[in-house]
Amino acid sequence: MHIAFIGLGNMGAPMARNLLKAGHALTVFDLNAQAVADLRDAGAASAASARAAAAEADFVITMLPAAAHVRSAYLGSDGVLAGVRAGVPLVDSSTIDPATIRELAKTAAAQGNPMADAPVSGGTGGAQAGTLTFMVGAEAALFEQIKPVLAGMGRNVVHCGGTGTGQVAKICNNLILGISMVGVAEAMALGEKLGIDPKVLAGIVNTSTGRCWASDTCNPFPGVIETAPAGRGYSGGFGAALMLKDLGLAADAARSVGQPLFLGAQAQQVYQSMTQLGEGALDFSGVIRQYRGKQA
Amino acid sequence: MHIAFIGLGNMGAPMARNLLKAGHALTVFDLNAQAVADLRDAGAASAASARAAAAEADFVITMLPAAAHVRSAYLGSDGVLAGVRAGVPLVDSSTIDPATIRELAKTAAAQGNPMADAPVSGGTGGAQAGTLTFMVGAEAALFEQIKPVLAGMGRNVVHCGGTGTGQVAKICNNLILGISMVGVAEAMALGEKLGIDPKVLAGIVNTSTGRCWASDTCNPFPGVIETAPAGRGYSGGFGAALMLKDLGLAADAARSVGQPLFLGAQAQQVYQSMTQLGEGALDFSGVIRQYRGKQA
Amino acid sequence: MHIAFIGLGNMGAPMARNLLKAGHALTVFDLNAQAVADLRDAGAASAASARAAAAEADFVITMLPAAAHVRSAYLGSDGVLAGVRAGVPLVDSSTIDPATIRELAKTAAAQGNPMADAPVSGGTGGAQAGTLTFMVGAEAALFEQIKPVLAGMGRNVVHCGGTGTGQVAKICNNLILGISMVGVAEAMALGEKLGIDPKVLAGIVNTSTGRCWASDTCNPFPGVIETAPAGRGYSGGFGAALMLKDLGLAADAARSVGQPLFLGAQAQQVYQSMTQLGEGALDFSGVIRQYRGKQA
Amino acid sequence: MHIAFIGLGNMGAPMARNLLKAGHALTVFDLNAQAVADLRDAGAASAASARAAAAEADFVITMLPAAAHVRSAYLGSDGVLAGVRAGVPLVDSSTIDPATIRELAKTAAAQGNPMADAPVSGGTGGAQAGTLTFMVGAEAALFEQIKPVLAGMGRNVVHCGGTGTGQVAKICNNLILGISMVGVAEAMALGEKLGIDPKVLAGIVNTSTGRCWASDTCNPFPGVIETAPAGRGYSGGFGAALMLKDLGLAADAARSVGQPLFLGAQAQQVYQSMTQLGEGALDFSGVIRQYRGKQA
Repeated sequence: MHIAFIGLGNMGAPMARNLLKAGHALTVFDLNAQAVADLRDAGAASAASARAAAAEADFVITMLPAAAHVRSAYLGSDGVLAGVRAGVPLVDSSTIDPATIRELAKTAAAQGNPMADAPVSGGTGGAQAGTLTFMVGAEAALFEQIKPVLAGMGRNVVHCGGTGTGQVAKICNNLILGISMVGVAEAMALGEKLGIDPKVLAGIVNTSTGRCWASDTCNPFPGVIETAPAGRGYSGGFGAALMLKDLGLAADAARSVGQPLFLGAQAQQVYQSMTQLGEGALDFSGVIRQYRGKQA
Repeated sequence: MHIAFIGLGNMGAPMARNLLKAGHALTVFDLNAQAVADLRDAGAASAASARAAAAEADFVITMLPAAAHVRSAYLGSDGVLAGVRAGVPLVDSSTIDPATIRELAKTAAAQGNPMADAPVSGGTGGAQAGTLTFMVGAEAALFEQIKPVLAGMGRNVVHCGGTGTGQVAKICNNLILGISMVGVAEAMALGEKLGIDPKVLAGIVNTSTGRCWASDTCNPFPGVIETAPAGRGYSGGFGAALMLKDLGLAADAARSVGQPLFLGAQAQQVYQSMTQLGEGALDFSGVIRQYRGKQA
Repeated sequence: MHIAFIGLGNMGAPMARNLLKAGHALTVFDLNAQAVADLRDAGAASAASARAAAAEADFVITMLPAAAHVRSAYLGSDGVLAGVRAGVPLVDSSTIDPATIRELAKTAAAQGNPMADAPVSGGTGGAQAGTLTFMVGAEAALFEQIKPVLAGMGRNVVHCGGTGTGQVAKICNNLILGISMVGVAEAMALGEKLGIDPKVLAGIVNTSTGRCWASDTCNPFPGVIETAPAGRGYSGGFGAALMLKDLGLAADAARSVGQPLFLGAQAQQVYQSMTQLGEGALDFSGVIRQYRGKQA
Repeated sequence: MHIAFIGLGNMGAPMARNLLKAGHALTVFDLNAQAVADLRDAGAASAASARAAAAEADFVITMLPAAAHVRSAYLGSDGVLAGVRAGVPLVDSSTIDPATIRELAKTAAAQGNPMADAPVSGGTGGAQAGTLTFMVGAEAALFEQIKPVLAGMGRNVVHCGGTGTGQVAKICNNLILGISMVGVAEAMALGEKLGIDPKVLAGIVNTSTGRCWASDTCNPFPGVIETAPAGRGYSGGFGAALMLKDLGLAADAARSVGQPLFLGAQAQQVYQSMTQLGEGALDFSGVIRQYRGKQA
């Protein structure tokens, strides 16, 4: 398959490489010339614009930082929709708001291109290893069509429902994750101060009703889970600034449907406080440092 | 073993019955005459006061609603400490603040009685079935001594550390639980409004980083988990008023050590709002009704 | 002066009428034909687009619901910037985010038009009576130039600093207002339940350190301040939905500069909960109904 | 009048001195021998216990740190109630929860002593200058009886209603104050970052709907109000730790009546975070340092 791949950042570049390894022909585009050169070295062709890349392709994938970039990559005068042939499927793997993707999909459908959202989880590690999870919002037929391509970049390709539901699934999952991590941080810091051994506390929580990924896999207290970022100074996990972005998407989505988010909004402020202190690049489990006081 | 059992409420009564079944001799005390009569029918002796019950016993267990009752049951002029023989171990299974139990244990130790805290999880169902989990705060030797007795009332008897750590474990676990349930409620309600099928959303969350007991076992959205209280009108689980009590204990404990609880405090207000609307007797997962609007 | 006035909603229409009364010549534009017809009856000319209205004018004023409308009214192919003569001052009185107005002002300056933001307080009552307060963000010379025109629609025309600071002033004032109203609501509802006469409580607060506009002028407890919306079923004041919009602007602005807003974010959720219950059209002081329970 | 004065801390000592100046005979008691010696030097008699002090008096005043001290000063075996003559009025000026004072008043009434609560505002400065405000909870006749004595220590003696309402008034006022100060801090810090001159912003707020004591008298931004603690490194005002105590009383009172306090609970966490960072002795307006980032 001839695939146009647009957006070669920390996530996009390794995803594109995995598509090459899977045997696809790639035409790539990115504003960053070095990123393009690297992919060319790996065997991809390059194009001067998203439009030009899309013009040659049977399949288009975009992986961009935020809604404004996605909008411009599709709707701009040099964008995908200006160049792509009718019938070619479009897949946006960026993490953005569901409303934007639904609008774009409508516009794309009007010119004959089916469009899916397929945000990922698994981070840069998963992108490199090809073990990402894709959460796909697409009509059933489109899902079947794009699944094999996505399978070249990830381990799980999950159908979430119609267009936009991939984003909904990702936002809602990360809303729970962002909240539960702060909850675990509050509890572990409190337990420490009240004199229980943090490992013992985590052991009890993890076999009881408090168990959750944030406690049993990524526990924020140093030394509790050996493989967790807490054991290496909160480096190399899911950055607090990214969690903050996702909670911002949740807040915006909740506002759009008129629903309060009492804890989501509060968790957002706690991560904002963390990033304001210059710790936005740390793994989000470093939020426990807001609670442990000076020793942390 | 001759055991004094004080406090025959919804939890204490079935626990006492299980001790009888395990072959112990029981002397019980409660202010509620009917509760006492029921236990007498089941084979227990009764006494006119906590003091009198304790006087005859080799082992004392208390199961009471709140710290004030525990304090009075041990320190009152008709209380346990006034009657018990030196050396007899004391176990309080009430859920109270760690500071109170630590004070009581000090007083008890001064007159020669070792004391442990052993709050439980598992609810009235677990109390009846004898499948409770005991979280025990006690010196190692005391823990070994009391473990066989507690094993007659529960399936797991976990040693959490020194005196008070049983309470700490329970409070911290329930802090995470109370927060993660609100987080799941916010996310499920948001997902519904954004157009994803709630079962599909839960399926994704439960195999991803948002997974937690509040989502995969007690999901608050009706119909997602068949056995959850959400499927039966939020009846018969862990009452919101009890969660509110436990979050109050967490708030008090955090205050005592000078730690903020941004999400814990906020979750407390959400459950308070739920109880103010007259829904405190519902399972705490009913908190999703604060988010789903009028249809819920 | 020949003024183009764009946006004839609940605020814009009476403002435009006051400009007519002040002796200015007006050319108006709005998508709502009836609103245009009404102004024509009052003596204004009308135009087929913002562009056409601006083309004839020595001065342009816009009064629109949100940033998207403002952006389109200025930047669209039929927008103000496509038609206006160089040198004509532009004044946007909408309440929007400071970033948008600053971008627009840059674009306008590039084609020779100085631009100011001048959001208002005072509501539809103030718009009709000509007693609005204008918070103006503009370079000093521009401020002096536009002040006499704004004075025809309001009582106070305050210079807040460079472009965008009018919006900043409005957002920050309403952030305090939105928070203090919830604070007063919590305190008045609590005082009532604890058995103090609400009038006595308000009297003490209003002469003490708790005094604020939300208590001494717009107290949310019915009967405390005779002229307040609380005395007439929370009708006819500053709608909760508008407060919610302004807190949303504050949240977005805080996010853009990386600052947490612990109370602002929380107040937003409380008003969101109020609007979710269908009470968004009530005065924002009706938020006390979230606290008083069923009797309110 | 012969007055027993119990509690000679930072507030009690200067209050007692003012009573001496007003011509009353005083018998004082405190656990701190130096504090007692100082008052004796100023002309007071001293007693060996609260009981002994009360035994000689026609009037009893207590000024203590928290409910536990008040309870013990009245109910202890060496406490006021064990010594005082029937009919002697009792006035507690401590800031405690309304429930405790109402219980004590009941007990006191049962042995013939009318009791009032009369917490103060005005701080140590007001205590020294004799300019405190007394918020009095007492039956009307008792209020008339005690008012002249309190007038010797303060400028305003306000009748709030029956027993306990003095505490209610103080708690509710300080709840608003604690919230509005955080609100002003959030808004001033946000305005600064968005580029408005803080003095200009405060000027607009103080003449608009955001006006409040926290902004126009004690503005947390340095340099805005010359006399405010912000201008002297947040020294010498109302300590954050004291505000935290009062918000704790509000939280407890709200819990006792089953009312949520969404903003009160959140403000409490923000001050808790401030005190955790070792800034509890600063004026509570120093809370703005949680928002201004590293420059503050």
